[in-house]
Amino acid sequence: MIRLHVPDDLAAGADVIPAPEQGRYLTAVMRLAVGAEVLLFNGRDGEWRATLVEAGKRLCRLAVGARTRPQADGPDLDLVIALVKRARLETIIEKAAELGARRVRLAVTRRTNADHTNVPRLQAIATEAAEQTGRLDVPLILEPEKLDRMLDGWDPARRLVFCDEGGGVPPALDALPALSAGPGAVLIGPEGGFAPEEGEWLRALPFVTAVSLGPRILRADTAAIAALTLWQAALGDWR
Amino acid sequence: MIRLHVPDDLAAGADVIPAPEQGRYLTAVMRLAVGAEVLLFNGRDGEWRATLVEAGKRLCRLAVGARTRPQADGPDLDLVIALVKRARLETIIEKAAELGARRVRLAVTRRTNADHTNVPRLQAIATEAAEQTGRLDVPLILEPEKLDRMLDGWDPARRLVFCDEGGGVPPALDALPALSAGPGAVLIGPEGGFAPEEGEWLRALPFVTAVSLGPRILRADTAAIAALTLWQAALGDWR
Repeated sequence: MIRLHVPDDLAAGADVIPAPEQGRYLTAVMRLAVGAEVLLFNGRDGEWRATLVEAGKRLCRLAVGARTRPQADGPDLDLVIALVKRARLETIIEKAAELGARRVRLAVTRRTNADHTNVPRLQAIATEAAEQTGRLDVPLILEPEKLDRMLDGWDPARRLVFCDEGGGVPPALDALPALSAGPGAVLIGPEGGFAPEEGEWLRALPFVTAVSLGPRILRADTAAIAALTLWQAALGDWR
Repeated sequence: MIRLHVPDDLAAGADVIPAPEQGRYLTAVMRLAVGAEVLLFNGRDGEWRATLVEAGKRLCRLAVGARTRPQADGPDLDLVIALVKRARLETIIEKAAELGARRVRLAVTRRTNADHTNVPRLQAIATEAAEQTGRLDVPLILEPEKLDRMLDGWDPARRLVFCDEGGGVPPALDALPALSAGPGAVLIGPEGGFAPEEGEWLRALPFVTAVSLGPRILRADTAAIAALTLWQAALGDWR
């Protein structure tokens, strides 16, 4: 069944007018007619069944019925990703949503060669992926920030797993299970890797755990998916 | 340094004439001139340094120098993937090469809606990804085959990890470490999942271990990357 994220409060009997592009999707793309059912979620009130009660070209309206699932958020996991090329960054956002990241923090590092990006577009990709993956919230995409500034203000209670290509660090699956439960994050560098002095600085930070993702060179999207997978499998909600 | 996969035998002093598209890549795209060095591998003889000794528009020639690494292949891991849409299948092939799969077996399942694909193109994608990821072999892409036929002839010594969306199966990271070392494979279904009777049949096969990849619905490419990651981390060469 189609799932839509809406900003509205959700409760039995509520009336929801989907955004124009959502309305077009329901009626023009998916060809739903009055009486069709969809699922709605807003990140706060759980998931609700809703019935299409108006399906006009200009206006769609949904009547909220019964709740199908109470609100439940996944583990408190952030992805910190250096800005990479647009297509790969969009893939990473989609995958972060599927793999249950709660926030994506875009980082500018020494070797980042892009320092701007279209955050509203990335947020839309995250929302669509959240709708399809069945989660009840949408990952928040934050504006790009310089990595050193981001980590200057880092909450030390949030353990940052640094996927380190430098060598001499333990395999991810040796290090991760030893970390305490609680908020976490994974950090993936840009396509050219971190600068050596950046790597040294990162390894010395008290809230950082450096881990290896194996003997082969991984592209940034592969590394992000692998790291989120291992975190969820070892510390998150895959157990 | 640029790495190229070539079919030729490699030994000190050997002469290698790269394929025309490789030659164009070296001279026209990367603008290498006579005297430039690249790395060569063929999946048998390790990795070798080679010098460009002719860089013509029609002909390139490389002189093989010293060996930089002896041949070493990764774990004996296959990816069995149901045919999915072209763009996503190509992503999966690239990622299988990065994540060290030795073979990719394309499967036709009940709900597969494509039954043909361009295997030479997929093989070229695998080769390019292998060049970039630093491995010394190239994953072999096999022609599509019906899943039931493929599994009728399955070597029972190769444990098949079935990524099962059906529920009631253990988390991947609970099941994988209990498997014995040796040849392995992971199985990812089509976008619509396996048909219920296919899932039952798979779970009953003696060489199959059914595992869960968490509570969210994953796209086929995400599931393939996650499963290969967990296999390599728990049983493969990420340790």
